[in-house]
Amino acid sequence: MPSAITDETTWVTTEVPGPLSKQKIAALNKVFDARAVHFVVDYEKSHDNYIVDVDGNKYLDVYSQIASIPVGYNNPTLIAAAKSPEMISALVNRPATGNFPSENWFALLTEGLLRVAPKGHNQLFTAQSGSEANELAYKAAFMYYQRQKRGEGVEWSDHEIESSLHNTTPGSPDLSILSFKNSFHGRGFGSLSTTRSKAVHKLDIPSFDWPHAAFPALKYPLEDNAEANKAEEEASLREVEELITTWPNPVAAVIVEPIQSEGGDNHASPAFFQGLRSLTKKHGVLLIVDEVQTGFGATGKFWGHDHWNLSTPPDMVTFSKKAQTAGYFFGDAKLCPDKAYRQFNTWIGDAARVLLCNAVIDEILKRNLVEQTAQVGEQLYAALEQVAAKYPDRVHNLRGKGQGTCIAFDTINAAGLVKKMKSLGVNIGVCGKETVRLRPMLIFEAELVPKLVGTLEKAILAT
Amino acid sequence: MPSAITDETTWVTTEVPGPLSKQKIAALNKVFDARAVHFVVDYEKSHDNYIVDVDGNKYLDVYSQIASIPVGYNNPTLIAAAKSPEMISALVNRPATGNFPSENWFALLTEGLLRVAPKGHNQLFTAQSGSEANELAYKAAFMYYQRQKRGEGVEWSDHEIESSLHNTTPGSPDLSILSFKNSFHGRGFGSLSTTRSKAVHKLDIPSFDWPHAAFPALKYPLEDNAEANKAEEEASLREVEELITTWPNPVAAVIVEPIQSEGGDNHASPAFFQGLRSLTKKHGVLLIVDEVQTGFGATGKFWGHDHWNLSTPPDMVTFSKKAQTAGYFFGDAKLCPDKAYRQFNTWIGDAARVLLCNAVIDEILKRNLVEQTAQVGEQLYAALEQVAAKYPDRVHNLRGKGQGTCIAFDTINAAGLVKKMKSLGVNIGVCGKETVRLRPMLIFEAELVPKLVGTLEKAILAT
Repeated sequence: MPSAITDETTWVTTEVPGPLSKQKIAALNKVFDARAVHFVVDYEKSHDNYIVDVDGNKYLDVYSQIASIPVGYNNPTLIAAAKSPEMISALVNRPATGNFPSENWFALLTEGLLRVAPKGHNQLFTAQSGSEANELAYKAAFMYYQRQKRGEGVEWSDHEIESSLHNTTPGSPDLSILSFKNSFHGRGFGSLSTTRSKAVHKLDIPSFDWPHAAFPALKYPLEDNAEANKAEEEASLREVEELITTWPNPVAAVIVEPIQSEGGDNHASPAFFQGLRSLTKKHGVLLIVDEVQTGFGATGKFWGHDHWNLSTPPDMVTFSKKAQTAGYFFGDAKLCPDKAYRQFNTWIGDAARVLLCNAVIDEILKRNLVEQTAQVGEQLYAALEQVAAKYPDRVHNLRGKGQGTCIAFDTINAAGLVKKMKSLGVNIGVCGKETVRLRPMLIFEAELVPKLVGTLEKAILAT
Repeated sequence: MPSAITDETTWVTTEVPGPLSKQKIAALNKVFDARAVHFVVDYEKSHDNYIVDVDGNKYLDVYSQIASIPVGYNNPTLIAAAKSPEMISALVNRPATGNFPSENWFALLTEGLLRVAPKGHNQLFTAQSGSEANELAYKAAFMYYQRQKRGEGVEWSDHEIESSLHNTTPGSPDLSILSFKNSFHGRGFGSLSTTRSKAVHKLDIPSFDWPHAAFPALKYPLEDNAEANKAEEEASLREVEELITTWPNPVAAVIVEPIQSEGGDNHASPAFFQGLRSLTKKHGVLLIVDEVQTGFGATGKFWGHDHWNLSTPPDMVTFSKKAQTAGYFFGDAKLCPDKAYRQFNTWIGDAARVLLCNAVIDEILKRNLVEQTAQVGEQLYAALEQVAAKYPDRVHNLRGKGQGTCIAFDTINAAGLVKKMKSLGVNIGVCGKETVRLRPMLIFEAELVPKLVGTLEKAILAT
């Protein structure tokens, strides 16, 4: 649609949501909580970077289903995968994968997901959501911790076995996972205990007494605040060490996002993450990197933590969203529990979604979309820098340089700005308190930068 | 395959697992925990009630992927759904359903899942697994509890908001869910805290300090033990009431399976469940019925709790497995939280799996499979009664009369018996300590009863 790129006014012809969306939202809300619906989508008409609603409005989509559409709507490679005999079988003959895997499960993993396994990782456990992936990683960490403590090959005691069924120690130990302030790791009871971004997610839900440390609050532009930011990161690392050594419930693992996304697109330097790796190694604590939002190329590298140049890899890396499936990678065979059936469930992911994931990977590799995202990200960042220079009170703390298209900025009245952008044909998201976050797909191209940045400027002037 | 029914010896020609399965398990185990694999499956060759492994062995499958295959392998109605344009779109354009639902989402629910909503339920929240469905129901219960306590329309206090981010009271309250001994409700940190079946699932994993009551341990045959069983159920109900009124962490909900499945196929009478409904009503505690294994017709009624004749419906009903998707149904609008985004996640289920679920429902209704399951269950139970009479030491505590094909019995060396049955061409599962559980599909027909029961008898004689 290059010809339409500069002609936003023809894209959205109704208020947003439009009358048909409104009618459908009202109907849906009677049977399904539809209060957070932005608009109702005509996915048949949506294509590539563009989403079309039921009122016929068309938007450049740089929110991408909360950062989860990898290679565009109605992508032909994905459609071919969806029509394949393997997909039909995976859909209609859904296996209990841990008991009765399909003949092609091994190939699906080794010729699929394991092609892009993080450095140092050669095993995985599949799941269905980012929340589940994180919780499975926590469980692996807890079992690993107790295995080390118990001693290799030492059998479970009767007291451990019996107490575990009563949810009491020692069978059900008071261990913890350390996370960071403003983090988001999901909404299960374990993952939510590590999520610290917003009360709306957590309030009224019982949680574990687990520790959290401050995540560095960097000052921008980075080049003018090097010293203060270094001190900030060191303070955070000191707090992590303090918590690891003093928290009453021993810390089995630390979980961290390469970029805190839901919590406000907060970044830290490679030095910070290197420090975290050193600290966790020093204290025998596992490091879990939550790549649910950053994995699969969005940062201009396949994995967000590829930017860190770690001397030893993270112990586990979780993924979901753009992968269209979920799970965690690991390298150490001891992260596989001591007995079968301990890390287990009926389906252990969904082979149908793994097949789709493999098509996503094919498309990423074939079209060099990670490299493209790195390049387009540079251009996008440069264009936004100009907007920030022009309207410093409306675009400040611009961040994400060198992080692909994972770019964000703070503003005033983010909700109003984003609403205006929608009416001008750009679907874009918010996070944190007053932050606009860009989450275009990996197929976002340089020629779309003017449409996006031009619309932002128009919205700034109009609000 | 009627001609082959009595000719088991031609079905399995290798040891189980066979050489090819073994080879594939060993390869898979290097990248994926394959220690619980029974055999590797050729799903292309599997059909209807029959599963075929990569060594060419064919089994009558009455385990059905841990009770999760509803209407047979390669079911034509499901294949048609898998090939539909709606499915292709749901696969390749996976929406963040809470923000950008597809045009057909409302119809998918109202013309699909809501057709079979439990009595008194007219709303639902979709999920991806039974574990997740149960945890979402717990979260709904906790938010409901706090909403009642806070008072309708009362805003959250700053102290509540702030403390929730620190995982401390009052924002993160010490509330609990009551479950039963030997129950299985899943493996997330919340659902696992209510699971009490086996240490292998729970050991080393931190859990919440939640209460559990004894589930009635009925004596069989029921007709000879009416008085003792009544006393047993009353004792359990007394314990439930005692726990609700004295447990330090207030009980927001009770969760119960219509038949405790993983925990040993333990049944209770309608009177017990009626008592549970009365008790929970009396104390303002919600009742969640976990129909993950019993829902979708397996008990000879669409929902297991349809057998109970409750005066008021359960507050929430969770489902998964045979539904091929998951979620919870509810009736009271207040189980929808006070604000948007509280019960939320990126995908909120998977429309592709909901489409498949709707095809399952079509098939169940069109072929009257619930009624068929009720009838075949009667015949199957009668045939097993004869085996039990013949070999009382090998088949005892036969149970599940009138509960469709959810039939089970205790034996000695269940693992050995089941292994022998596999070698004779029947894939069958175990649960609890020494229990064989039958979980045929809904298409299990009367003509298959002799094959199943005959094989059992042969296996008894051979072990």
